[in-house]
Amino acid sequence: MKIVTLGEIMLRLTPSGYDRFVQTASFEAHYGGAEANVAAALANWGEDALFVSKVPDHEIGQAAVDALRAVGVDTRGVLRGGERLGIYYAERGADRRASKVIYDRANSAFALSRAEEYDWDKIFAGADWFHITGITPALGKNAEEVALSACKAAKARGVTVSCDVNYRSKLWDKEHAAKTLEKLLGYADVCIVNENQAQELFGAPEEGTAAYMAEKFGFACIALTYRRTIDALHNKIWSELFMDGQSVQSPVYSMEMIDRIGGGDAFAAGLIYALGHKYGLQKAAGFAEAVSCLKHSIPGDVCLCSLEEARSLAENEGNAKVSR
Amino acid sequence: MKIVTLGEIMLRLTPSGYDRFVQTASFEAHYGGAEANVAAALANWGEDALFVSKVPDHEIGQAAVDALRAVGVDTRGVLRGGERLGIYYAERGADRRASKVIYDRANSAFALSRAEEYDWDKIFAGADWFHITGITPALGKNAEEVALSACKAAKARGVTVSCDVNYRSKLWDKEHAAKTLEKLLGYADVCIVNENQAQELFGAPEEGTAAYMAEKFGFACIALTYRRTIDALHNKIWSELFMDGQSVQSPVYSMEMIDRIGGGDAFAAGLIYALGHKYGLQKAAGFAEAVSCLKHSIPGDVCLCSLEEARSLAENEGNAKVSR
Amino acid sequence: MKIVTLGEIMLRLTPSGYDRFVQTASFEAHYGGAEANVAAALANWGEDALFVSKVPDHEIGQAAVDALRAVGVDTRGVLRGGERLGIYYAERGADRRASKVIYDRANSAFALSRAEEYDWDKIFAGADWFHITGITPALGKNAEEVALSACKAAKARGVTVSCDVNYRSKLWDKEHAAKTLEKLLGYADVCIVNENQAQELFGAPEEGTAAYMAEKFGFACIALTYRRTIDALHNKIWSELFMDGQSVQSPVYSMEMIDRIGGGDAFAAGLIYALGHKYGLQKAAGFAEAVSCLKHSIPGDVCLCSLEEARSLAENEGNAKVSR
Amino acid sequence: MKIVTLGEIMLRLTPSGYDRFVQTASFEAHYGGAEANVAAALANWGEDALFVSKVPDHEIGQAAVDALRAVGVDTRGVLRGGERLGIYYAERGADRRASKVIYDRANSAFALSRAEEYDWDKIFAGADWFHITGITPALGKNAEEVALSACKAAKARGVTVSCDVNYRSKLWDKEHAAKTLEKLLGYADVCIVNENQAQELFGAPEEGTAAYMAEKFGFACIALTYRRTIDALHNKIWSELFMDGQSVQSPVYSMEMIDRIGGGDAFAAGLIYALGHKYGLQKAAGFAEAVSCLKHSIPGDVCLCSLEEARSLAENEGNAKVSR
Amino acid sequence: MKIVTLGEIMLRLTPSGYDRFVQTASFEAHYGGAEANVAAALANWGEDALFVSKVPDHEIGQAAVDALRAVGVDTRGVLRGGERLGIYYAERGADRRASKVIYDRANSAFALSRAEEYDWDKIFAGADWFHITGITPALGKNAEEVALSACKAAKARGVTVSCDVNYRSKLWDKEHAAKTLEKLLGYADVCIVNENQAQELFGAPEEGTAAYMAEKFGFACIALTYRRTIDALHNKIWSELFMDGQSVQSPVYSMEMIDRIGGGDAFAAGLIYALGHKYGLQKAAGFAEAVSCLKHSIPGDVCLCSLEEARSLAENEGNAKVSR
Amino acid sequence: MKIVTLGEIMLRLTPSGYDRFVQTASFEAHYGGAEANVAAALANWGEDALFVSKVPDHEIGQAAVDALRAVGVDTRGVLRGGERLGIYYAERGADRRASKVIYDRANSAFALSRAEEYDWDKIFAGADWFHITGITPALGKNAEEVALSACKAAKARGVTVSCDVNYRSKLWDKEHAAKTLEKLLGYADVCIVNENQAQELFGAPEEGTAAYMAEKFGFACIALTYRRTIDALHNKIWSELFMDGQSVQSPVYSMEMIDRIGGGDAFAAGLIYALGHKYGLQKAAGFAEAVSCLKHSIPGDVCLCSLEEARSLAENEGNAKVSR
Repeated sequence: MKIVTLGEIMLRLTPSGYDRFVQTASFEAHYGGAEANVAAALANWGEDALFVSKVPDHEIGQAAVDALRAVGVDTRGVLRGGERLGIYYAERGADRRASKVIYDRANSAFALSRAEEYDWDKIFAGADWFHITGITPALGKNAEEVALSACKAAKARGVTVSCDVNYRSKLWDKEHAAKTLEKLLGYADVCIVNENQAQELFGAPEEGTAAYMAEKFGFACIALTYRRTIDALHNKIWSELFMDGQSVQSPVYSMEMIDRIGGGDAFAAGLIYALGHKYGLQKAAGFAEAVSCLKHSIPGDVCLCSLEEARSLAENEGNAKVSR
Repeated sequence: MKIVTLGEIMLRLTPSGYDRFVQTASFEAHYGGAEANVAAALANWGEDALFVSKVPDHEIGQAAVDALRAVGVDTRGVLRGGERLGIYYAERGADRRASKVIYDRANSAFALSRAEEYDWDKIFAGADWFHITGITPALGKNAEEVALSACKAAKARGVTVSCDVNYRSKLWDKEHAAKTLEKLLGYADVCIVNENQAQELFGAPEEGTAAYMAEKFGFACIALTYRRTIDALHNKIWSELFMDGQSVQSPVYSMEMIDRIGGGDAFAAGLIYALGHKYGLQKAAGFAEAVSCLKHSIPGDVCLCSLEEARSLAENEGNAKVSR
Repeated sequence: MKIVTLGEIMLRLTPSGYDRFVQTASFEAHYGGAEANVAAALANWGEDALFVSKVPDHEIGQAAVDALRAVGVDTRGVLRGGERLGIYYAERGADRRASKVIYDRANSAFALSRAEEYDWDKIFAGADWFHITGITPALGKNAEEVALSACKAAKARGVTVSCDVNYRSKLWDKEHAAKTLEKLLGYADVCIVNENQAQELFGAPEEGTAAYMAEKFGFACIALTYRRTIDALHNKIWSELFMDGQSVQSPVYSMEMIDRIGGGDAFAAGLIYALGHKYGLQKAAGFAEAVSCLKHSIPGDVCLCSLEEARSLAENEGNAKVSR
Repeated sequence: MKIVTLGEIMLRLTPSGYDRFVQTASFEAHYGGAEANVAAALANWGEDALFVSKVPDHEIGQAAVDALRAVGVDTRGVLRGGERLGIYYAERGADRRASKVIYDRANSAFALSRAEEYDWDKIFAGADWFHITGITPALGKNAEEVALSACKAAKARGVTVSCDVNYRSKLWDKEHAAKTLEKLLGYADVCIVNENQAQELFGAPEEGTAAYMAEKFGFACIALTYRRTIDALHNKIWSELFMDGQSVQSPVYSMEMIDRIGGGDAFAAGLIYALGHKYGLQKAAGFAEAVSCLKHSIPGDVCLCSLEEARSLAENEGNAKVSR
Repeated sequence: MKIVTLGEIMLRLTPSGYDRFVQTASFEAHYGGAEANVAAALANWGEDALFVSKVPDHEIGQAAVDALRAVGVDTRGVLRGGERLGIYYAERGADRRASKVIYDRANSAFALSRAEEYDWDKIFAGADWFHITGITPALGKNAEEVALSACKAAKARGVTVSCDVNYRSKLWDKEHAAKTLEKLLGYADVCIVNENQAQELFGAPEEGTAAYMAEKFGFACIALTYRRTIDALHNKIWSELFMDGQSVQSPVYSMEMIDRIGGGDAFAAGLIYALGHKYGLQKAAGFAEAVSCLKHSIPGDVCLCSLEEARSLAENEGNAKVSR
Repeated sequence: MKIVTLGEIMLRLTPSGYDRFVQTASFEAHYGGAEANVAAALANWGEDALFVSKVPDHEIGQAAVDALRAVGVDTRGVLRGGERLGIYYAERGADRRASKVIYDRANSAFALSRAEEYDWDKIFAGADWFHITGITPALGKNAEEVALSACKAAKARGVTVSCDVNYRSKLWDKEHAAKTLEKLLGYADVCIVNENQAQELFGAPEEGTAAYMAEKFGFACIALTYRRTIDALHNKIWSELFMDGQSVQSPVYSMEMIDRIGGGDAFAAGLIYALGHKYGLQKAAGFAEAVSCLKHSIPGDVCLCSLEEARSLAENEGNAKVSR
């Protein structure tokens, strides 16, 4: 399966240990972004994953590319140019002190890139799947056009399109988001959306959210994701998959987290893998949620679990013994 | 509000991660002390906080001053001279292995400083509040005189005096402590004391401890603090505030801790802030306990939480979602 | 008491923090091995512990020796020569991501050492106790001969022999293991075995495992150890001690772990200490389990707890307050 | 002496050790900027130094403020608001591999701040000296206006103005720079300029550069600075001071460098200190160059040397024995 | 240009800073090997570089692959299987304390791999160049066969073959080496050899070494490399290129080194690049030596310099100013 | 050879990298002291070295003992008790910024220990050599008595006594030092003294210093050591050995240093080894100086070089090639 994902990749700067921003003497460097993380997880499992983006033509841009190449992502879709790589600062929380993210991503090479810079024919040649998230159009006028243009191009070439709604209130207001995301979702075959966002942005009812969304947008498959925050290091997650009028629920994972970022992207990667490999609905939900759960135990943005680890957990044989 | 605090500031040396003293190859450096921590938390919230102490006139003494200046403390009250900066070694525990503190603070510049070195007129000029703890008189004859002299000077100038009993059995015996602390508390308007210490040192009954203490010493306000140790990284804390014959209790926080040291000082800072800003009794208890709770999630001696974080937690809207 | 232990010591390479193998930029270095860990714990408590092994005559071999000497082990029993020090890579897990061990220990100096290189007269001069584990004969033909030769020599000199079964399926197959371990256990006065391994390897019944084993091999004392894996960082452990037809159970410790490796070796050290110091059966079980519990809170392979810490926990007065 | 400096403060991100950008797993965090570094060096020597700037109202902005407060800078002149703190990535070179700086400072809070946001009356109240560099007007239209407005305001209040030309070709083109800097220098009493920049930007002759500049702009004092690059870690520096028609030269320092950044700012701080404290011309040149030399041996942007160290080196009694 | 290289890739374990093996608490992890380093440098410059090897099918093997993928190497030529990844411990020296390497590479997956496992048709499809070193046949009987088989296959397909003699006395004795290397060099079009090794192994005269070697083996081009060790951190290097009866010498670089390992491999990469891109002889020598020089300033085994950096240094315009 | 050394062992706290005291976030931990370092170097070479001292009965004291045990020192001569372990802060300098030491060693367990606590019979049983330095009597009245008592006891038992003058002006004044050291040197057979101290303290002439000292105190052997400070990281060292009226000079080592501390102690260890093993005078001087030179390239207080490394350097075959 050849999967294409498109979006921004950023440098994540995280204070060491549990230090607050104001007290750290150094920042751990990770490179990630919603769509990049999906490509990375899939490539790590041996899939052919092409990442499409734009990074500045300097060493920090190159470092982002190298991080993806290390796990096997095909980065030939990454344009060079523009002024800067977006940054986000991420402080690890603990107990009742919430984790904190400060974005500094405006005017990034990708956000300012223009749709005509991308060669869709080349990008989608041989592609089976295209994945994008609602973060991309939130990055500004240019990125919105890139996003829509990409979806249109994928659709026109018969590529399956998945979209993770991923609404970020810090990036745009709800009204604008709703309008733009509706356009984007119009191209999607598969949708992933957090329960609350489905309701807030698209007026979905509390009961029957999935069915409402599937009908409204004509999705072949929709995943509703749920997250309950116990404290900064403990979350509960689960999901509902809805397809062909049938609905299944994943197990609920109550987690002690190492790194919360990228949990949703891992779910998306798991879902794409499962659907692409024709898993049954229940098995697909279980696999995707297991992948998401495992991501929360791995530092960095990318879910570096193996297929075996994910499958083993999904099949409930997962355990945490030292294997020796 | 201008707050003055007086006491010793020390270098804290902590093995990296969960290493024991005997196996660490390096020590994390933090600077703190009960009264310094209170000044730091208040300055970090924008209050005018003056710290009074004495440190040796070398770079390690300067580093302690710099650490306080970084968060905005006015360090013009810190004298220079003497031989050494006190040290304490602090090993992080885990599970049933308790955290360990080894003091090496005898003969510090502050402990040997003499009352006549301090210019109370200058120190208390414009001051609204003076805070001290029972650790200071425990440091020896000189420090005891400094402590009493400071309280007397503050009282004479109409400055509100708060005292955190903070009895440390490693520093002095109970009898001596009780006698000296009674003198000190005689100057206090506001008292903070751990339930057990109130009973052991001052003969307070198990029921009605707060009222007993308030009456005995004539406090305008007394806070009784409670701590239950589940294991090295899990504690439960709460408190009772007693004022004008009225008693309220804070919420109980069951915590997964990052750094236990300074939790009591954070409570004191929160209480001073709340009383100084005329919070109602219940709100004051809630705010002070929230500050204390948050401290336990922050590395180092100082509670680097923001007012917003403390208020949000106190108002029970606190949660630990990644905000992005 | 003079205790002799014999076995392999390895370099353990652990990614920093919770990093996976593929993402770490550095490895923490620890030196350990089942029998070395037992010697180290006992030496750390002031016992006279001689470790017998073979390491290559280069600096990595020397570093292993130095690590043992640091805690007081007598390393005059360590031969020099051979080609390499065995290695094992150990990745810390978290939540549902299991900890992982990759062995790279084939052809180590010890594994290839021959029985005739060891001078049993010198080694066992004045010895009271000899400890070995089932890992040693699993290392190959040579090591098997060394193990049996050592047991025979100890026995012949009236030294008490203890053996921790420690079956590792990655090192040898069950049939071969069972056969060889039966020979080894034939020399043992004291046996430690995990409940499952007793049943799988030696056909012990689920009920009365200890009695079955004691009778089958003629042990003076047998300890059955139990471990339940909640997740990668949470385990429950307990044990049963059987001696003179009497059986006692230790408390159950439900632990939040810092470092799982060496937990069983700590138990063995605790048991040897307790039996050697003539503790009663119940007290012995409690002490050994407390030592094992404490090990899980200490980084590295060796249980660096003090006797006081272990006794205090065992006597249920253990708590995890900061002592200051 | 009260000194005011105005400019941008940035986060510097430096790979650990000698790692290249593409291979580092973490970045050391330092906060600095040309004018901030001058204020910091002066405050560190006990001078009253006010820094004027604007940083975003979030924790990264606060961290920059804290770094300055730690060394005693008065940061009440720092406005809050805007979107981002400027960043620069700085890779340490070695041997023939040059150090590298990648700027990511466009659209910073300071660069977009407007002249009318600054209250010059308050800023210059009691001020003796104002220092600015040519980097500030290079940051864009807004910053240019702020720079000129500040100089005008200082001049109008009788404050001595010093300007370090600091032409950075990556920030603007030569023509624009020359025109704007001429305006800026029109306000300056004291000028610091690299020999080459004096010639390239202002047409100064190779011989008599200082005199030419002094006459052209009417400087009371001008410092010409020289730097020869041997390799990434070895530079030679010296300077010429010209005042009242008299010219002196500093010693030449051939240095093995630890951190090259901020060397020029340290010189400026040294010069301001020397002139403000009425050093003779030769002594001033010697002191300023000694400060600059010492900076190159100190990590970070700020010259954390003491007055004693600088004086001792300047008086040629400086040596590098371990003092014990 | 498509370049194929074949050989072993190992994990390099380096104590932190200047620590000796026996005192380090952690090891920096790098992955490298002579032929892998050549592929990595070429891929980093944008060339199509395929690395052929075998690594164990576990995460440490994968980490080696990931390190190569990160810089763009095509790792589809890396087989999976076998028992272990070779290791070498490398201690940084300083002053008169020499750097130290301890090999632990016996029985690696690659060393035990068999010639028939490699599909030469696939490997050499479209290849222009094949590079190997004398380390490969030194790894044992199997590796020797793999090496010869690869050379033969390359030759048969018209691929240019380069061989770096790289004699390591720790791996095999001189006689065996000479005999085997003569066979290997029989296939080579381009040879790189240290002056001493040419004389010791192949009886080359001190004068006219290059011509002697070229004639003896029929090389189209031969590079003689020279290294003089001043101390552990200072070396002088230069080289002589001999082609078509013409000889040129590179500049001599007297270096302060950060990481000595991989300097020769960087030279080889530079030479392959230069010859492949039809540089003239003098320019080729200058470029290759510049690349080698730059490598010594970069941590790790791989020369992560850019083409621009290498060209700039080679053209003598290289300098080490901070570019900003 | 059994060597006994007696003195204080301290915790050394060093900022990471080249950080100044005021900017470091952590301190590297090393344990050392003049006489401890001598014992450690000798034990590391396989000699039987007993260290006599007193450390507090807590984990920091234990860590000091463990550090010595790791390299093979017999620590059964270390008493437990007293209040604290002495500390010294050591900042690495660079270029013209001198390294800095801040002592915080007053009132250490050793400094306050009393002569009668030491059992000289047991300590000197079987001893061949006793080494002490002038630092010990500088630690106060008690330590002075311990030092003299030890020398007397050694002398009485026919043990060879060596004394390194090691005058530290920060610890005592010259007059007191001279008087006390004369007493100490009265017991010495072998003396090590810096040229300047010989002249300043004992009135030795600039010419014939060694002969003067030998005659004045009746030394069998005296070593004069020389050090020239180029800058913080570059020193020149050499020495003169005088024995039986004959004088030899060691080579001069011009060094690039990693860690200057312990260079003199390494010399002493080298000299004791050489004299104890009956080296000729010239060979002894060369060996001792080579050991001292190598120490400067090794982090920490202890010279962890091997005998082979020292001999190889001394025999001028020393080089700094990577051996592989």
